[in-house]
Amino acid sequence: MKIISKPLELKKYLKDEEKSIGFVPTMGALHEGHISLIKRARGETEIVIVSIFVNPKQFSKDEDFSKYPKKDEADTKICEMSGVDILFFPNAKDIYGCDEVSLLAPNIRGFVLEGLTRPTHFNGVLTVVMKLLNIVSPTKAYFGKKDAQQFNLINLMVKQLFMSVEIIGVETVRESDGLALSSRNVYLSKKERRESLKISSSLYLAGNLIVKNILDVDTIKEQMQKILAPLEIFYVEILNRNFEIIKEVEVGNSIVLVEVKVGNTRLLDNIWL
Amino acid sequence: MKIISKPLELKKYLKDEEKSIGFVPTMGALHEGHISLIKRARGETEIVIVSIFVNPKQFSKDEDFSKYPKKDEADTKICEMSGVDILFFPNAKDIYGCDEVSLLAPNIRGFVLEGLTRPTHFNGVLTVVMKLLNIVSPTKAYFGKKDAQQFNLINLMVKQLFMSVEIIGVETVRESDGLALSSRNVYLSKKERRESLKISSSLYLAGNLIVKNILDVDTIKEQMQKILAPLEIFYVEILNRNFEIIKEVEVGNSIVLVEVKVGNTRLLDNIWL
Repeated sequence: MKIISKPLELKKYLKDEEKSIGFVPTMGALHEGHISLIKRARGETEIVIVSIFVNPKQFSKDEDFSKYPKKDEADTKICEMSGVDILFFPNAKDIYGCDEVSLLAPNIRGFVLEGLTRPTHFNGVLTVVMKLLNIVSPTKAYFGKKDAQQFNLINLMVKQLFMSVEIIGVETVRESDGLALSSRNVYLSKKERRESLKISSSLYLAGNLIVKNILDVDTIKEQMQKILAPLEIFYVEILNRNFEIIKEVEVGNSIVLVEVKVGNTRLLDNIWL
Repeated sequence: MKIISKPLELKKYLKDEEKSIGFVPTMGALHEGHISLIKRARGETEIVIVSIFVNPKQFSKDEDFSKYPKKDEADTKICEMSGVDILFFPNAKDIYGCDEVSLLAPNIRGFVLEGLTRPTHFNGVLTVVMKLLNIVSPTKAYFGKKDAQQFNLINLMVKQLFMSVEIIGVETVRESDGLALSSRNVYLSKKERRESLKISSSLYLAGNLIVKNILDVDTIKEQMQKILAPLEIFYVEILNRNFEIIKEVEVGNSIVLVEVKVGNTRLLDNIWL
């Protein structure tokens, strides 16, 4: 496995590459969710590139940027064992300069849910993803569906700006008890770990209601909120796959999304129904 | 010459193109300035593509979008005679959708000079240029140095976002009396046309002062303002080529920029010294 830290070195290295490239951008602290992205890329493309970059621009001042889990050695090992060809490990100073052109999330879809409480978050996500995609020029790039809104906005960016990459969404990986894998799960105490199960339970409940043909969005949300109590809820929402508000679930075209605070940790999850 | 109007059709058509592509994005109303860009592309690349798109997003509500000169037939003829291979003539509805990801000009360099009086202008320019560059994926793209700030910001965007295209700046073409060619010159009455010569005169004066080793920026600006009077001045500025404020001209690394209103028409010009 080749490790490259300079963006322009990687870009030059890949310049005349004719093989298909699968790209998995991450913020490190790799877990089984990331590994499933890497495996998917390994199966579909000839060269697999993983980037590890904790992007400062997607954290606001009071968020967990400085304490975001860093596991460089373990991450490197995981990439090696997963058959990654190139690990891209840039420094912030090589990614960002002064007084920069940046991406601006769409007015509506960029500033609801996550974007409502974190208004600069998706600008930072889109800017860094654009940079990384332009450095690597992959055939396909792989993102987890757990960050559903991020996945939606990256798809919008690629389509609206006529970018050439194909974006692939990969299913969320869960612990056997239902908790969605997240690098932030390490923040949870034992008690919080138990409480966090309310998240997946609320999503499974939504699934069960929909199977029983209860499709009214407000009714489902109310039932979910009951299960989630007494956790602090950032949002419980049911949208269509284009992230537009709906009153009734459109089976096969809906996403149920939850974000709550467990202790001091924001956890999000969703289910596509 | 092939004429294509659908962005995705053009993108697909060029997908596996291995020849070098030279791209000249324009807003139509082509004049000798544009032709010099096309000729330069013709000399340097194998396939020459010109786009004609009057970009609504770079005009504010009170600007001249609806009356911006349109000369589709003449423009097509000019492209054909200049050896253009593909003319790209998109509709606004195929370029822009609803609730879009867009580009945001840099905080400082995007909001001085043109960006000061037209604060959304460069966001619109960068967004459409990004889209056009991604549709065409050119080897080289050609822009006039007359729009110096635009040229600077497009270069910044390409560098900061790690885009693959090479941006080429082409010298301003002038009438024999010094007036820089612009599609907006057609707005000028005979009297205004005479008054507009003050612009190039003020720039030549700056050049002469610098040759005489008068390098103090304030002194030069004062002399220029005298020549420009009584025209309404938007700005007279001397910056380094990175668009940063300087007190003393750095010969070989400076740009002298002027924008004035002649009648109802904004005219800009500059000289690189």
